[in-house]
Formats: sequence, C-alpha cells, structure tokens
Amino acid sequence: MKKAVILVSGGADSITVMALALQMNYEIYAISINYSQRNNIELEKIKESIKTYKVKQHKIINIDLQELGGSALTDNEIKVPKYNSSQDIGDEIPVTYVPARNTIFLSYALGYAEIIGSTDIFIGVHATDYANYPDCRPEYLKAFEKMANLATAIGISSEHSIKIHAPLINMTKGQIIATGLKLGVDYSKTISCYDPEDDLSCGTCHACLVRLKAFEENNSVDPIRYIK
Amino acid sequence: MKKAVILVSGGADSITVMALALQMNYEIYAISINYSQRNNIELEKIKESIKTYKVKQHKIINIDLQELGGSALTDNEIKVPKYNSSQDIGDEIPVTYVPARNTIFLSYALGYAEIIGSTDIFIGVHATDYANYPDCRPEYLKAFEKMANLATAIGISSEHSIKIHAPLINMTKGQIIATGLKLGVDYSKTISCYDPEDDLSCGTCHACLVRLKAFEENNSVDPIRYIK
Repeated sequence: MKKAVILVSGGADSITVMALALQMNYEIYAISINYSQRNNIELEKIKESIKTYKVKQHKIINIDLQELGGSALTDNEIKVPKYNSSQDIGDEIPVTYVPARNTIFLSYALGYAEIIGSTDIFIGVHATDYANYPDCRPEYLKAFEKMANLATAIGISSEHSIKIHAPLINMTKGQIIATGLKLGVDYSKTISCYDPEDDLSCGTCHACLVRLKAFEENNSVDPIRYIK
Repeated sequence: MKKAVILVSGGADSITVMALALQMNYEIYAISINYSQRNNIELEKIKESIKTYKVKQHKIINIDLQELGGSALTDNEIKVPKYNSSQDIGDEIPVTYVPARNTIFLSYALGYAEIIGSTDIFIGVHATDYANYPDCRPEYLKAFEKMANLATAIGISSEHSIKIHAPLINMTKGQIIATGLKLGVDYSKTISCYDPEDDLSCGTCHACLVRLKAFEENNSVDPIRYIK
C-alpha cells in the first residue's frame, strides 16, 4: 500500500480529501497543524472524525503563528468580516488570509512525508471558492512541488518524485460536498466557520456562507449547528 | 531603508549574514526558530549576540519538530556521529539532516516578511561545506524563491519580487569566518556544535570540525570553549 500524508484541518474539504485518498487505497498518515487559530474547535472535530476512518497515524503539530500575527485568524485585534451573502466578498485578498500559511503547512507535511518514506502529499485547497488566496492556486502548488523535489533526500534520491495532490482544486464547494456525500462522509463531524462560539458556527463569515450554499446546491441540509 | 528578514540561529554563519546585511544598509528583522533541537544553547547565544547589533525586531518562533523526529538533531534516540577529522564525512546525507528543515524555516521567514512588508529574506546556508544537505543547494533556493513569489500577497502584487539572499552560498567555512572577522563579528557569542554540553562545544561533530578548521585557515583562534 502506498503511503499518503494528508493535511487534515477538521473542515469539510480535508475530510473529503481523506475519503478520496482512502478510496484510492492509500495508507493514511494524517497531519493536523494547531496554529492557535480562532477556529481551533476544528482540532476537536478532527479527533472525533478521524476515529471513524482507517488512519495509520495522526500527528498534531503545535505551531506559533500568533507570534507573527498579520491575519484575522491569528490576531485577535483583527475582526473576521461578516457578510449577508456569498456575493459580497469581492476580489481583494481578505483579512482572513494567513501569510504563507499553506507554505508552512505543506513544509511540515513534506518533513513528515520524508520521515515515513511517502512521496504523496494531499491538501484540500480549491481555487474556485478561494480565488483570492494566492496559496490556493494550481501554479503555486506546482511551484511547491518542484521545490519539494529539490529540498529533500527523498525528492532527490527516489525513483518516484514527490507529488502534491490537490484533488479538489477545480471543484466548487458544491461539487466537493457532492463528492463527500457520495463517499459517505459524515459532515456533522466537521466545522468550517472562521469565528465559531464553541461548536456553533456563526453563519455569516465567508466560510459559513460558502458551506451553507454548497449544501443547498446538493438539496441537502448541513448537519452542523449555526448561531443563526 | 529596505527591510530584511534574516534567519538567525546563533551559529557563526547566520551572524555573519546579519553583519553583511547591516553593511548593505538593511533594516534588520531577525527571526529565530526554536525547534527544541539538541543544540538549543544556540538560542541563548543569539539573544546575547543580537544585543550587540542594531536590530529592529527579533522574533523567536517555537516549533515542534520533535513530534516528527527523524533526525539526530530532533530525536534523542539517534546519536550525533563523531569524527576524527573533517575528511571522514563521506558523501551520504548525514543523520543530522532534519527533513524539510530549511523549507520550514524559510516558510516562517516568508510569512514574517509578508507581514512586515519585506521582500528580502536572508539565510546563511552554504553549499560547499554542506554539499550533502539537499536544502542547502542553490537550485533549491531558486525553487523556493519562485514558489514564494506565487505563494504570497506581496509576491503576486508587489512591483518588487521576493528574493532569497544566500550571500554565503559559494563560500567555504574559512571564507565565511574571514568575511566575519573583517566585519568585526564577535564569534565568542556564537556556537556551531550539534551536541554541546551546556555552552561547551564537543569538538568532534561535523560542525565543530569544520568550524575549527575554518579558524585555523584564518590563522585565528576560535574564541569559544571546547570539551576537548
């Protein structure tokens, strides 16, 4: 069985990626990054969720992005913006963008992959809903992959090169939820909100609006609880 | 004044890089990564050392590489190899190689650079002495730079692109020490050992042998203390 390293956040996307990798017969090595973000209820969710999947190993890495700050997700001084509908977001890079976040996350995944002898790293980014995050674009992932193959002992010595898999990259959130529902993903054990109160999602941040719309598109009801 | 983000470890190389960046009239934003490595006496040294330089800000980021393990520098089960001379090392990737270490470090530096609005990141790697570490090679740094320009808001929007500076890349350790001595670097406040006892360097790991030889080449005496 080939080993896959999967970045798992506890959100709907990464759980869908895990279900896809299991279907592809990978042995799963999950890695979750606790960056003291506001929505770290995600990590509780992932622990719940991961029990229901066949996972070989799960690493939780504690990192310190608050020391750097610079984002509404890591700096309590910056407010998470609220919207009335998913149309309001515009094309600016939002304040919820965490500088170099996916690069930091993928770097840890790369170290983990090298240690366990895996050349397959999975990440749940998708360009369509998060077109404004530079580190969710296919050209970024390609450049990371190229760098990874020069950075590591496994990358330069292995017959197989390191591959960054982003199976959701061209999907809308609606298509992601459709894919997961077909694979039997239990979305009640996920959370997407940028600004939850305990395990209640706010229902008005970008992440909540996009998620709610995605379930609607699938004529399905989002099984998690919202404040409003 | 242009802002420079400098990865500072407390070793001889990164302090030399800082002295070079100061000479180039950069405003210095130093970042040190505490990865619970065996030689974390380095961090005490850097705090001492940094006081003697004009540094605008110094961030210390605590990260958790022991959770992943996989190197003699992060896993206490793996012993640091000892040598009689710097000729014994061979061309294998050594067990002191930390998987994806420079990629993780540069990723944090990239996040920091983006937050403070800098496009200049300095790192003290050099390919000549560490030819066996894949993430010390120029082609790796070029690939990281390309990725960084796709990963970040500053990389995709700025008129100036992000640059990874590795001013020591083509120097031998002897040339690095020569450069630093000329710039007045106080090497007594640095430490290079992979396996120190308190602030005593072992004198027999790869890092110690290379350092001792470098001072010899400069007809100079290494001002730090060794066990033997």
